[in-house]
Amino acid sequence: TGRTHSVFAPSPRCNFGPKGTLKKIQNDEELIVIQDPSSQRLHWNAPPSNILIIRKPGLSTLPEFQILVVKLLKRRLNVFVASSDRAQVPFDSDADLKESFERCIPFDQKDDLNKIDLVICLGGDGTLLHASSVFQKNCPPVLSFSMGSLGFLTPFDFQFHDKILDEALSGKVAVLLRTRLKCTIIKGGLNNLSPSDTPDLSSQTSETSTSSDVDDALNLALNEVVIDRGPNPYLSNIDLYINDKFITKVQGDGLIISTPTGSTAYGMAAGASMVHPSVPAMVLCPICPHSLSFRPIVVPAGIDLTVKVAEDARLTAWLSVDGRNRLELLQNDSVKMTTSIHPVPCICRFDQVGDWFQSLADILHWNIRKPQLSFD
Amino acid sequence: TGRTHSVFAPSPRCNFGPKGTLKKIQNDEELIVIQDPSSQRLHWNAPPSNILIIRKPGLSTLPEFQILVVKLLKRRLNVFVASSDRAQVPFDSDADLKESFERCIPFDQKDDLNKIDLVICLGGDGTLLHASSVFQKNCPPVLSFSMGSLGFLTPFDFQFHDKILDEALSGKVAVLLRTRLKCTIIKGGLNNLSPSDTPDLSSQTSETSTSSDVDDALNLALNEVVIDRGPNPYLSNIDLYINDKFITKVQGDGLIISTPTGSTAYGMAAGASMVHPSVPAMVLCPICPHSLSFRPIVVPAGIDLTVKVAEDARLTAWLSVDGRNRLELLQNDSVKMTTSIHPVPCICRFDQVGDWFQSLADILHWNIRKPQLSFD
Amino acid sequence: TGRTHSVFAPSPRCNFGPKGTLKKIQNDEELIVIQDPSSQRLHWNAPPSNILIIRKPGLSTLPEFQILVVKLLKRRLNVFVASSDRAQVPFDSDADLKESFERCIPFDQKDDLNKIDLVICLGGDGTLLHASSVFQKNCPPVLSFSMGSLGFLTPFDFQFHDKILDEALSGKVAVLLRTRLKCTIIKGGLNNLSPSDTPDLSSQTSETSTSSDVDDALNLALNEVVIDRGPNPYLSNIDLYINDKFITKVQGDGLIISTPTGSTAYGMAAGASMVHPSVPAMVLCPICPHSLSFRPIVVPAGIDLTVKVAEDARLTAWLSVDGRNRLELLQNDSVKMTTSIHPVPCICRFDQVGDWFQSLADILHWNIRKPQLSFD
Amino acid sequence: TGRTHSVFAPSPRCNFGPKGTLKKIQNDEELIVIQDPSSQRLHWNAPPSNILIIRKPGLSTLPEFQILVVKLLKRRLNVFVASSDRAQVPFDSDADLKESFERCIPFDQKDDLNKIDLVICLGGDGTLLHASSVFQKNCPPVLSFSMGSLGFLTPFDFQFHDKILDEALSGKVAVLLRTRLKCTIIKGGLNNLSPSDTPDLSSQTSETSTSSDVDDALNLALNEVVIDRGPNPYLSNIDLYINDKFITKVQGDGLIISTPTGSTAYGMAAGASMVHPSVPAMVLCPICPHSLSFRPIVVPAGIDLTVKVAEDARLTAWLSVDGRNRLELLQNDSVKMTTSIHPVPCICRFDQVGDWFQSLADILHWNIRKPQLSFD
Repeated sequence: TGRTHSVFAPSPRCNFGPKGTLKKIQNDEELIVIQDPSSQRLHWNAPPSNILIIRKPGLSTLPEFQILVVKLLKRRLNVFVASSDRAQVPFDSDADLKESFERCIPFDQKDDLNKIDLVICLGGDGTLLHASSVFQKNCPPVLSFSMGSLGFLTPFDFQFHDKILDEALSGKVAVLLRTRLKCTIIKGGLNNLSPSDTPDLSSQTSETSTSSDVDDALNLALNEVVIDRGPNPYLSNIDLYINDKFITKVQGDGLIISTPTGSTAYGMAAGASMVHPSVPAMVLCPICPHSLSFRPIVVPAGIDLTVKVAEDARLTAWLSVDGRNRLELLQNDSVKMTTSIHPVPCICRFDQVGDWFQSLADILHWNIRKPQLSFD
Repeated sequence: TGRTHSVFAPSPRCNFGPKGTLKKIQNDEELIVIQDPSSQRLHWNAPPSNILIIRKPGLSTLPEFQILVVKLLKRRLNVFVASSDRAQVPFDSDADLKESFERCIPFDQKDDLNKIDLVICLGGDGTLLHASSVFQKNCPPVLSFSMGSLGFLTPFDFQFHDKILDEALSGKVAVLLRTRLKCTIIKGGLNNLSPSDTPDLSSQTSETSTSSDVDDALNLALNEVVIDRGPNPYLSNIDLYINDKFITKVQGDGLIISTPTGSTAYGMAAGASMVHPSVPAMVLCPICPHSLSFRPIVVPAGIDLTVKVAEDARLTAWLSVDGRNRLELLQNDSVKMTTSIHPVPCICRFDQVGDWFQSLADILHWNIRKPQLSFD
Repeated sequence: TGRTHSVFAPSPRCNFGPKGTLKKIQNDEELIVIQDPSSQRLHWNAPPSNILIIRKPGLSTLPEFQILVVKLLKRRLNVFVASSDRAQVPFDSDADLKESFERCIPFDQKDDLNKIDLVICLGGDGTLLHASSVFQKNCPPVLSFSMGSLGFLTPFDFQFHDKILDEALSGKVAVLLRTRLKCTIIKGGLNNLSPSDTPDLSSQTSETSTSSDVDDALNLALNEVVIDRGPNPYLSNIDLYINDKFITKVQGDGLIISTPTGSTAYGMAAGASMVHPSVPAMVLCPICPHSLSFRPIVVPAGIDLTVKVAEDARLTAWLSVDGRNRLELLQNDSVKMTTSIHPVPCICRFDQVGDWFQSLADILHWNIRKPQLSFD
Repeated sequence: TGRTHSVFAPSPRCNFGPKGTLKKIQNDEELIVIQDPSSQRLHWNAPPSNILIIRKPGLSTLPEFQILVVKLLKRRLNVFVASSDRAQVPFDSDADLKESFERCIPFDQKDDLNKIDLVICLGGDGTLLHASSVFQKNCPPVLSFSMGSLGFLTPFDFQFHDKILDEALSGKVAVLLRTRLKCTIIKGGLNNLSPSDTPDLSSQTSETSTSSDVDDALNLALNEVVIDRGPNPYLSNIDLYINDKFITKVQGDGLIISTPTGSTAYGMAAGASMVHPSVPAMVLCPICPHSLSFRPIVVPAGIDLTVKVAEDARLTAWLSVDGRNRLELLQNDSVKMTTSIHPVPCICRFDQVGDWFQSLADILHWNIRKPQLSFD
């Protein structure tokens, strides 16, 4: 059906939530393997009606949250919020506001997952990571407001929310498909490193079909998968396989397998180069490696990575996905990773390329120093 | 026409020399924007007959060079060699060998460029760089023997040359299209950073049509383009533009714009992550930057980069392409770079992915340390 | 008494075990603050008689261990060994060997600590770390055999043990005083960061006099003290003070405070420069810091460092000393570190400077590549 | 005479200019090899009377320069200025100011070198480098005002110049002796790498006595000595010797030999750890080394380094001292470096330790991010 596995990663699914899709490019018959990322624009098959708001907990995002709820209700949209947000919000005896919040629908992570047309994030990069963790398969388009803090994932300023909402709800905005890593844990007895496990190819449902898989809440990483020593003094006998071929032992504190999105997070701290999110790649970055020659490497997004705790390892290792769900890996356990067919479609401010370089300049304090004056 | 400019880089031309092409994949009607690199296999439209041998100068490669010439002549192939190689080779009063060499054709870089079906390199990575510099537009398939030294670009062991020649001449071997950077110098008066200069899109010939271009001998880089301070104490007022938008000033010793191939050469020395050659990307790597936050970045292969010496810069800068052709850049001069449509098709030993990781392990001494024995 | 606290670190005590001391330099009246390290040579006040052997557990070091025991007994020395070594060693029905081992004295870490004149290590760098952990105050001279593995701490080849023993037992060999970090934990309520706690100055016994100190087994680090996130996702509110002045928050995976000796161990893996062990310094090296500008720094050995978990930190942190004794640091806990007056005196092969550069070249594979041949 | 060569570097001379010296510490008879840096305080043998002002060229420092000249003249001090400063300064028809400047003495770099009691710098770090280049042997105490820009070398704010001048002229201020590297070029025919050339030991005058020495203007480096490829494509056959023993070949763009002061300048850009200026050390930092295992190393200040262009090197190399005086090194030429006995005594704002960490925090934007608020 036109979907293939490739060194460039699996061709992503292009329906996002019930109504979102990519704008078809002119040539309708063209069987595109990978559409040029820079031409990707959001298209609504039908007007979006169900909006989920995810906000950073605490008081700091409360004022904007209240404004946003009222504005969306006025647009006759169905507003889903976390039940905790619905209950705990204080209304200062503001009857109208109270009534508004009573019209909000408490989001049920089991039943409402396929109802959401658009997600709006209020807060730092953590809110997008949370959205990603909620939508572990198909993810609706996401609109992210930064609320003051600098981040690579939250391009919009709440100050202009009216105009931004207009544009996002009418579609035609640029969309960046942020790739995610699919991570499958195989407990014990990985007798054969080349099983018929190409789940991304077969069907959407296969992704979580194996009982040995990590549970749904954590098998897609927007930033990175980390295998580290945890509370042990070092990693012992951790082997890295690429396309089922042994590459090297990992000796040190751990190994980060990062998406381009994650390359500006933990990966950057560990010394990886920053990778633009439109590059179809994964970054392998060792944490404090014993060998000076084990430097970060950037590999094609479609490659299959396996990290295995050897049968005779003296110590265990620990896995975490986007910084959550720490899980102990015992001797003989393996983790298989490759790029998922389910990206997170993020609405861009300008376009894919410009947004990222703008964030880079802001966050790294580039251009802060004024050019030196010439001598007179 | 099926050829488009993309964030993933221009779709490469897929005829290599007079007869080499990529093996068509099954679905003939499919208008592929980018074929999956891992399925790229060499196909000969007609049996190859004209072979160019490029060898490392000096005595070290002479024995294998003589063997190869004789073997190729026996296969009734036309053997092109550098005229210096033809003349200077000593034959130790071996009449047969002498006669063989007299049958070799001295390679004329002007007239014979489009006659060569296959290039065979004998020597280190430098021989492939030389081949790339010779074939500045369309480049025939290249078969590289390493002659003992370790390198990322020379996968084959001469010991098995008979079998390797059989396979390469019959086609169906895996081919890695190593991307090159196209580099255009615009002297002075770059009044407008957004001219209608998208030469890769229009036609093949446009690549060198402008008189202001750098001369043919150096405008395609297989490894990297470097803008550095040269003999000056530092860079002064060098501006980096991406897609014609100002990104940052470059302060330090210089800036490397590298292909994935070059990321394991000068780029690695300057601190860049190593990028697999199948990743459609360029690496921007500052040399000794003044700012700790100017770290190497990996950007999509299709982006347009411009480096400009500002009008009021106190010092000039220097350009070099694959370590050659140093050229001074004056105030107001610009260098525009993007991925070329003319890759260098390199015949693989196993496949794209496996070859590279094998080189990585060999060159970086991975796996040299035996796994630690468990305690008894 | 000529001993002062200094930016260069406290003047080390120069009696090592019951009989070892530094050879006095000519000018006897000279009140030397710090003797030039390169002139430091071992001197025995009386012939050494009590030798402790520390070996790497397992079978690999057993043959040399047996040889060494027999040789030392023949020299009429008292040989102390770990009781486990004495009991578990198999003697293959070798009656003489059995009798020899029965003459060995089981080392009692409480009672025999001050009896040992010389320590001999058989094994990798780990054996010297173990020796350092045993002698937490005054440490006798140490002679280290490498047993095949490469290491910075084990300069001698067992093959030449007879000659080496002759020289070491007669004194006059060069000695490198490897500095150690003294590490004091202050649990909770560190009301005042400038208490009158300069324990190194007052007297030798003060080092472990406070009940709140970490127990004797771990308060001197030969390699490094690490404060890290342990199983937490990140460090929260960890403050670094230098000479009781707030310097910066530490954000990332952790902070390594390393001796020069440790700069080629964990510090190197985390990106620190390698520091020659004769440089009176400590290295502060962040582990995966969030900020690109928090780079490793080298500070004078005599500075007082304090790392404090802030009162309002959301998470705890973890401490380890030379990779052992992990200990949780709660809110308000502090760790104070400075250079101890009790170095580990290591017998050199050639001299302080030469030994280290030899190890550097061996371990980092310097000089493996033959110089490139000139063209002919 | 109490002066010795040591692994810790030669004991520095402690008379700075005609009148400056270090405050003697209590114990007068003590033959101190190295006084604790943190107790070093300036002492005037007689009231200072001759002040040299060095300012950054251009208009930016002119107002403060004029104020300073008038203030110093009012204190009845002799004010030396560059003749260019004396001539070119515009006075806007201010007769008093004009008269003041006529009382300034044009500084003659040959005749007045030994008359200056105190140097005052106005401008960035470059002004201190200039002062260092002027006083190539004995250097008087230096007081540096930063004039707005951030720098490690210019601790004082001009706003408080009255108070600062009072303190500096009365002495007793803390002084940091910034070490310099002495650099001797031996042209050709270095037949023997162990000649009797220990110039720092013999006498002060020996430092420039050899005719083969580089000329006086450039043989002491406050920041660093650099040997690099210059306009060549790479370094060829450059050998590094430590204490006349071959250590390694240098392959890459170059080698920086830096003082601790320079470790926060070019050294930092090339990846060296930042070294506190009170640590008696030199930093060896390769520039873009071919080998991943050639990392920056910190060695004792008293070690002798030699960099030699091998006899059979195919290319030359280039030397520069503090970024100036580029000089070509031919085959067989050597450069010998060690710590000089002539430091630059810099007046501190608070003290040695505090000043540096303050600069570090300011320049690297430490502490800019507010601590994260705790959740409510």
